Amino acid sequence: MPLKNAISGRLLARLESSYWTSCVQHTRNSCRLPRPMNLGGTRRYSHHVGNNPKPSRSWASLASRSAIVVGIAAGSLQLLSEESNDKPYSKVKKAKVKTFRLAEVKQHDGSSKNPWVIRGTSVYDITDWVRAHPGGEVILTAAGGSLEPYWDIFTIHKRADVYEILEQYKIGEIDDVDLKDGRVPQDAIVDPFKYDPERDERLVTLTPCPRNAETPEVGLREFITPNELFYVRNHFWVPAVDGPEHKIIVELPDGSERTYNVKELKERFQRHKVTTTLQCAGNRRKSMTDGAGPTNGLQWKAGAISTAEWEGVKLVDVLADAGLDIENLPADAQHVHFSAMEAYGASIPIRKAIDPWGDVLLAFDMNGAELPRDHGYPIRVIVPGTVAARSVKWLSQITISEDESPTQWQQRDYKSFCPSDVKNPDWQKARSIQEMPVTSAFTRVEPIRDSKGEVESICAEGYAYSGGGREIIRVDVSVDEGRTWHEAELLDDEAQVSGSKAWCWKRWKYKGQVADDRKTVARAVLVVKATDEAYNTQPHTYESIFNARGNLATAWDHAKVSLGR
Amino acid sequence: MPLKNAISGRLLARLESSYWTSCVQHTRNSCRLPRPMNLGGTRRYSHHVGNNPKPSRSWASLASRSAIVVGIAAGSLQLLSEESNDKPYSKVKKAKVKTFRLAEVKQHDGSSKNPWVIRGTSVYDITDWVRAHPGGEVILTAAGGSLEPYWDIFTIHKRADVYEILEQYKIGEIDDVDLKDGRVPQDAIVDPFKYDPERDERLVTLTPCPRNAETPEVGLREFITPNELFYVRNHFWVPAVDGPEHKIIVELPDGSERTYNVKELKERFQRHKVTTTLQCAGNRRKSMTDGAGPTNGLQWKAGAISTAEWEGVKLVDVLADAGLDIENLPADAQHVHFSAMEAYGASIPIRKAIDPWGDVLLAFDMNGAELPRDHGYPIRVIVPGTVAARSVKWLSQITISEDESPTQWQQRDYKSFCPSDVKNPDWQKARSIQEMPVTSAFTRVEPIRDSKGEVESICAEGYAYSGGGREIIRVDVSVDEGRTWHEAELLDDEAQVSGSKAWCWKRWKYKGQVADDRKTVARAVLVVKATDEAYNTQPHTYESIFNARGNLATAWDHAKVSLGR
Repeated sequence: MPLKNAISGRLLARLESSYWTSCVQHTRNSCRLPRPMNLGGTRRYSHHVGNNPKPSRSWASLASRSAIVVGIAAGSLQLLSEESNDKPYSKVKKAKVKTFRLAEVKQHDGSSKNPWVIRGTSVYDITDWVRAHPGGEVILTAAGGSLEPYWDIFTIHKRADVYEILEQYKIGEIDDVDLKDGRVPQDAIVDPFKYDPERDERLVTLTPCPRNAETPEVGLREFITPNELFYVRNHFWVPAVDGPEHKIIVELPDGSERTYNVKELKERFQRHKVTTTLQCAGNRRKSMTDGAGPTNGLQWKAGAISTAEWEGVKLVDVLADAGLDIENLPADAQHVHFSAMEAYGASIPIRKAIDPWGDVLLAFDMNGAELPRDHGYPIRVIVPGTVAARSVKWLSQITISEDESPTQWQQRDYKSFCPSDVKNPDWQKARSIQEMPVTSAFTRVEPIRDSKGEVESICAEGYAYSGGGREIIRVDVSVDEGRTWHEAELLDDEAQVSGSKAWCWKRWKYKGQVADDRKTVARAVLVVKATDEAYNTQPHTYESIFNARGNLATAWDHAKVSLGR
Repeated sequence: MPLKNAISGRLLARLESSYWTSCVQHTRNSCRLPRPMNLGGTRRYSHHVGNNPKPSRSWASLASRSAIVVGIAAGSLQLLSEESNDKPYSKVKKAKVKTFRLAEVKQHDGSSKNPWVIRGTSVYDITDWVRAHPGGEVILTAAGGSLEPYWDIFTIHKRADVYEILEQYKIGEIDDVDLKDGRVPQDAIVDPFKYDPERDERLVTLTPCPRNAETPEVGLREFITPNELFYVRNHFWVPAVDGPEHKIIVELPDGSERTYNVKELKERFQRHKVTTTLQCAGNRRKSMTDGAGPTNGLQWKAGAISTAEWEGVKLVDVLADAGLDIENLPADAQHVHFSAMEAYGASIPIRKAIDPWGDVLLAFDMNGAELPRDHGYPIRVIVPGTVAARSVKWLSQITISEDESPTQWQQRDYKSFCPSDVKNPDWQKARSIQEMPVTSAFTRVEPIRDSKGEVESICAEGYAYSGGGREIIRVDVSVDEGRTWHEAELLDDEAQVSGSKAWCWKRWKYKGQVADDRKTVARAVLVVKATDEAYNTQPHTYESIFNARGNLATAWDHAKVSLGR
């Protein structure tokens, strides 16, 4: 038996016992290996990238490719760059191996019958591996060049067993004449983020690549967040695509498909507007870290939340048009998967999709303007009342399935656990986050001083939000660390709202006195908590909701204000 | 101007500035004064009272009367007997007043053109007052006899301004020959609770009249609560009525009406089964009192919650049959009011009523048997996922309205407030409770000892529940007062469930070790908290959710267990 096959056998044995296998067993029509059609379909597009220079076909065709199933089997992986398993690769000896020029490797790109990749200075023919790759065809994005920039995102690859697999496909080395100081020069490595759009400088950047940035205070204080200040949560690069011709495939449980392009969706279906807040599951994660210990993920403060008016067509209308019997759903129509162009994917329960008051849109406008590239141009999903991770951007495929999406982001992220399950949480057992719990936060706290400089009162502002369309009915503020509470004023922003339920945050204001016995204290600690219409309220501290992933950091928010002169 | 009119003028001035007036202004078709039809309609019924002896027509016709609008204007009142404003009435001097025999008063019952009532030994002709009575026609229930038993329920009447109003209608005194020791003898006072059904002795009684009793531990540990152990929450007496012929009026916003009797509902409409937990808003109120201070209301422990399978017809089917256009609701169809036969009333938002997954029933069977009288015989509303106060028993009228029910129980009870709003909460501003927040409780805790009598482990059992059909996804138990948490086992009771959403409580079990360093402690304090599918969880302590009414006592539940030998 050739070595390559032996290794593959070992890998398969490993997969047999892994979560990946259970994914494959449990899903019907999404978890199979990638279909050439998806790739071919997107390959036909032309690639207009807004104001950016037109990219070369080789990169753009890959960057915009509908990589439907990355993470498909990623249950056993931890794809997000938020985790780091960085280990140096072991350089393979160069004795008696074949050498290739960089130009030759470049010809073996994602459109080639025999895709090659580079790692370090080694060249690999991954033709036989593509179909077995747990992440699916997204691996082709790297073909024709270096894997490294991708593995800097998919850090899960940086481990011994993955290196071992790759080594089996090695065909040679880069010719020394193409190396600079013994390495493949940087300018030969295609930067997948090269075509990311410009960003407003006021956004509070957490990571530039992939782009993750909070809405700054000035944006959080508006009811409608200006597009340029809407928080950005990207898992990968921003796909470059020709908007009107961009196609979305709708696949039903019986395997039948219907393909629409954006232009057709805009013209054929009734348009709807929905105003909704979107919030990252990790919003306020930093406060959980500060309050209860280290968490694994982007350390968002209170700005991973924003509100906009979205315009698009109703998902349910498109599903019905594609042939789904909404009134009598097939038994295997339980979840709606959304696959994005770059690699991301997630799903929502079908009931949310067809709920007459669910307001799920395929949106192409945001606050009256075309979707910005950072927010899903040319088309994205908007799922009001649900964690923003399900409002998939750069939509390329919708799949109706009996099971939840098998992606990393549905199966192995965006969940929470019992506080004791720190080391080995049971990802399969935990419920994926859909509707969000009630939360609130300060956006501004200011002491008001009299002419002598004494603090007369304290003004505070903030937002409160709950998922599922459950309206915020009350916000309580304490100026004495939670001993006594006072009701804040809820701002009436109803005139700015479209939609069937209370999908938006409530802004609140509070002006309170500082008790005489506390005026000598150097600083006051203000606390805020909100109550929604189901009378759910926030937990007091982080210890009782702590999870190592740092999701749903919804404990009472605190703000310190100096009382000294 | 006659004195009576002058007094009425003063009363009206009082009402002008009261909440009652705003009720009248804001409601369209429910808050008008009582219509003779409702009274007449129920008067035609015969009065079969199960196994009880057939009551005399005069009492039963009143007790079973569809007193649609008691509490209609009760916004300015506090009807529930849970509050006590008891003050002795000032006895009116008997000089030169006309006297009446008890037999003569009895002829002026609720069916008389000139209804009279007795208070103390005085007689009042309330003919002119009935139409102005803020509580509506329920006042006629007392006509022909003494008011006192009713005012023992409607304790709000026991105050000076009410005494003052009544005095204006005084026409004389009871003849001395009918008095015993200077009082109207007890046997002349009709007991409105005389025909209440027998109760299982295992129920934990809080008040016998009206009947309020908790499910005992043995019942709380079953998934389906046996009918005889289902908790009882009555606001009044139990109406006596002939089941099949009992009529329910459906009134639409345009004023049109359709009347159904129970037999017709059973025969003409498709039947549905729904398994749901019902929970009183005051469940666990005692723990709020113990944890944060005095609360006003029945001091329920953790037994004001039970689960049953209900069978009936869908409310939406009946509304559609009555002529409501479900697909295109009129703009003034916002709430569905339910009026009960004894006096109670409440409402739900119309969306809940017509929600395809809302499962709102008009139910006549409970766990496969006819509704017990204590639980609404012959017909009641079942509103899954919503506070039980909206699942109105002994249903007599359904009214579609632009506004919420104007009753006491919608406007001035079953709400919660900012913890600081203890003395004068703003009832009008606060949201009436509909969907319930997440909660959990212990039902049993037991130490397991080894052969030496040392505590080896602790077993605990309980329930967890959340409103709105949001499934309980996790229950965490702590054996060290909340420092560390462990996941409890959720019991799989799905085979016993009918319904579109997770309307039922989840039973849970936990078996845990006691840490070595705690074995020397005399007793352990266990804590439980639950998380629902929207990842809402319970507040830690009662201080932050305290409300003087003691509603929604959902803080972490505690249980003490002795570790000593």
